[in-house]
Amino acid sequence: MNEKYADDSFTLHTDLYQINMVETYWEDGIHQRKAVFEVFFRKLPFGNGYAVFAGLERVIQYLQNFRFSESDIEYLRSELGYQEDFLEYLKTVRFTGTLRSMREGEIVFGNEPILRIEAPLAEAQLVETAILNIINFQTLIATKASRIKHILGDDPAMEFGSRRAHELDAALWGARAAYIGGFDATSNVRAGKLFGIPVVGTHAHAMIQAYQDEYVAFHKYARRHKDCVFLVDTYDTLKSGVPNAIRVAKELGDQINFIGIRIDSGDLAYLSKEARKMLDEAGFTDAKIFASNDLDEETIINLKSQGAKIDVWGIGTKLITAYDQPALGAVYKLVAIEDENGNMVDTIKISGNPEKVTTPGLKRVYRIVNKINQKAEGDYIALESENPQQEERLKMFHPVYTFISKFVTNFEARDLHETIFENGKLVYTSPPLKEIQDFVKENLKLFWDEYKRTMNPEQYPVDLSQACWDNKMANIRKVKEKIDKLEEYRE
Amino acid sequence: MNEKYADDSFTLHTDLYQINMVETYWEDGIHQRKAVFEVFFRKLPFGNGYAVFAGLERVIQYLQNFRFSESDIEYLRSELGYQEDFLEYLKTVRFTGTLRSMREGEIVFGNEPILRIEAPLAEAQLVETAILNIINFQTLIATKASRIKHILGDDPAMEFGSRRAHELDAALWGARAAYIGGFDATSNVRAGKLFGIPVVGTHAHAMIQAYQDEYVAFHKYARRHKDCVFLVDTYDTLKSGVPNAIRVAKELGDQINFIGIRIDSGDLAYLSKEARKMLDEAGFTDAKIFASNDLDEETIINLKSQGAKIDVWGIGTKLITAYDQPALGAVYKLVAIEDENGNMVDTIKISGNPEKVTTPGLKRVYRIVNKINQKAEGDYIALESENPQQEERLKMFHPVYTFISKFVTNFEARDLHETIFENGKLVYTSPPLKEIQDFVKENLKLFWDEYKRTMNPEQYPVDLSQACWDNKMANIRKVKEKIDKLEEYRE
Repeated sequence: MNEKYADDSFTLHTDLYQINMVETYWEDGIHQRKAVFEVFFRKLPFGNGYAVFAGLERVIQYLQNFRFSESDIEYLRSELGYQEDFLEYLKTVRFTGTLRSMREGEIVFGNEPILRIEAPLAEAQLVETAILNIINFQTLIATKASRIKHILGDDPAMEFGSRRAHELDAALWGARAAYIGGFDATSNVRAGKLFGIPVVGTHAHAMIQAYQDEYVAFHKYARRHKDCVFLVDTYDTLKSGVPNAIRVAKELGDQINFIGIRIDSGDLAYLSKEARKMLDEAGFTDAKIFASNDLDEETIINLKSQGAKIDVWGIGTKLITAYDQPALGAVYKLVAIEDENGNMVDTIKISGNPEKVTTPGLKRVYRIVNKINQKAEGDYIALESENPQQEERLKMFHPVYTFISKFVTNFEARDLHETIFENGKLVYTSPPLKEIQDFVKENLKLFWDEYKRTMNPEQYPVDLSQACWDNKMANIRKVKEKIDKLEEYRE
Repeated sequence: MNEKYADDSFTLHTDLYQINMVETYWEDGIHQRKAVFEVFFRKLPFGNGYAVFAGLERVIQYLQNFRFSESDIEYLRSELGYQEDFLEYLKTVRFTGTLRSMREGEIVFGNEPILRIEAPLAEAQLVETAILNIINFQTLIATKASRIKHILGDDPAMEFGSRRAHELDAALWGARAAYIGGFDATSNVRAGKLFGIPVVGTHAHAMIQAYQDEYVAFHKYARRHKDCVFLVDTYDTLKSGVPNAIRVAKELGDQINFIGIRIDSGDLAYLSKEARKMLDEAGFTDAKIFASNDLDEETIINLKSQGAKIDVWGIGTKLITAYDQPALGAVYKLVAIEDENGNMVDTIKISGNPEKVTTPGLKRVYRIVNKINQKAEGDYIALESENPQQEERLKMFHPVYTFISKFVTNFEARDLHETIFENGKLVYTSPPLKEIQDFVKENLKLFWDEYKRTMNPEQYPVDLSQACWDNKMANIRKVKEKIDKLEEYRE
């Protein structure tokens, strides 16, 4: 799609400050120091009780192909004025780090590391923007889809949002994320081709208009498409659309498989109930009613409470744009770095807002599963050196209200990270997409319903280990002391 | 970015129903009939008084490259079961139609055709999804950017949203759309490379953390980057960040060009005012204060009303996701089609919601500009056969409240469409991006301030010609009569 540069790459898909920081590190000779960054978000989207992680597949593709192309380098040279010595270095940069990540389809919560990147400082810095860009969007859509699917139960859900997605990638990868979140199919054909997602679709209003006669149009359509779903709201759903669909279905009889009708506008509750009656009276009791038109979990709950007779749901705009909260705020924070002696030291970012203070150090995140009822008790963030599985009685306490605590026994501590890249080498094989979708379904069974309801869910515990907490406090003290000294120095 | 198919194309980036409709047309032998589709949206986004059209550039690229690749055809064959005869036809499909479109940067309103596609029915149908996908997003972002820039006036505005954009394309094309809407720069380096947009960026919190000492980090940064903007909120903006920035700026003196500081968290009003005092007291009265952190037009108005001392604005999430309304509802509607005798006949889509009834027929859209004050009186949608410039006294009336009308004299009727493709041949040369941005600025001067305010703007008139209105009414009657006959038939 880029006419100008045959060798264009995604490596320049980064914020300029990343390159400027890398230049600083390189000039100073610290660009190869090992750094550890973590990706996490602070707040669950949509007021949901959990999120569904998606985006790893594209992150893998991105990291594998990470290198500045000739035209990238030429742009940095001629347009941005970077100097030859630095550009020579940039040409050599590949991703040689280690990536540990949750698997796609993992259930994830606020303030826990989804990905952990251990890499030479320069590399880790350059890949930040693209990783966040990918993870933020795909996780958002998988979560929204899971939320909608939670309300739909076994009703089939179809992703119809391509035309309202934020440009092409969002339509494509959004269709994939929706499938991960539990959707059954998409209308986007390329998503079907590239990811093996089932694709669905019948015809639009334009076809009726093209024939200028609904009855004729349905007939024409059925000649080639034996599995028929007729769109009935081009002129008048109940006076024209449904009667014409029934008439054609009767006339063609066994020559077609009359699956049902689709309603795309108007009062879906009323129209679906009336259409249901008409179909039933005509003997088409198995015919399904498909509905679409700015649906989301709220409208679906509402339609169901009104007794709408909708069997299959087409969800577009509100899903693919994550309409009620179109951004997930995942961030990428440095938690440790190698010092001049080759030792790893922890780093922290302080903020006036206490929830924005980062948690320093190399960490792992464990899901603590009760062995008796097979339910998750909470997630437990521990330092790399700890092994919670060895604890007989695990103390879990709230990371803000530390006086809230509980002891867990007879548990399994599941490490939620897989190693994806090891020193730049891809060591992970992505499962087939269907398995990722199944993984979400299985995964959700670990959680009590109270965490999964779409309105005011209970907050699932994400706790720090005592050592992790103590380390954080020590780091905060260290910075505070430094600031205090600075003030003394100025006074 | 697609590993699986070297020849993957965007041609399958369409809804499946498009292909099924095309198969119907092809089976019936009407796929080559000339069809006219129009793209328009009904409602302006964000409660704004106007929108800024963007997306044409990518639509052009898309249409030029429109052909099914071998792997596309193979997918349709083996996975979706389309038959050979139809696939043989699909292999031959190119875009051979005529596209008339507004230029990028045109000021556009609800219910007026932005693009008009005249093409063989099959082709026009296949390209719908991608065109809407592109236009909807880019127009939304250009509009949001223009809205923010309207509040900022001459203050520089920078697009910082890549990490929160909806996947890679949205970050890239969103940066371009923001520039069209009036933004001065982007942080996305690839957008700079591909579109020539100025790119900006200094360093992040991670750099301070990497050095674990703010003072040292600023020094190191300044060694290579003489034009310095220091990010001051890693540990404590007023106690640590600003003092360290001032100290380094003083120490390095003329060795650097101390541009200023950036604040990315906390109370931006308070912090910027305090930082301003500190900078001024230190003699850095020219140093600029950059601010970012979930800004949008509302927060900017608020900050300005509090007397915040912010000189340069970094806008991320709220712009690139169009946070308060992340979808523009542009649609693609058939307005005329060739009949079996080769004559063009108008088509209409009826809806229970009167605003959703389409306006049939080949149309043009004119901007009626008052020759005396050079202000736009309204837009005027007329049938292809009409020429409003020939009218001495043009009657303009509201397309819903038809009793609201006015007469305009001494006007210029500017045809808002350019011919982009003529029978499949690209006949349009896109202007340089900077010219598109300038075109928006010039263009906005045509409109009274009342249409441009961000809150409760006056509604700009978009009117139908009498002939266009009469034609619409005639078409509605035709459909109604048909439905009535159908009812009689059933009774």
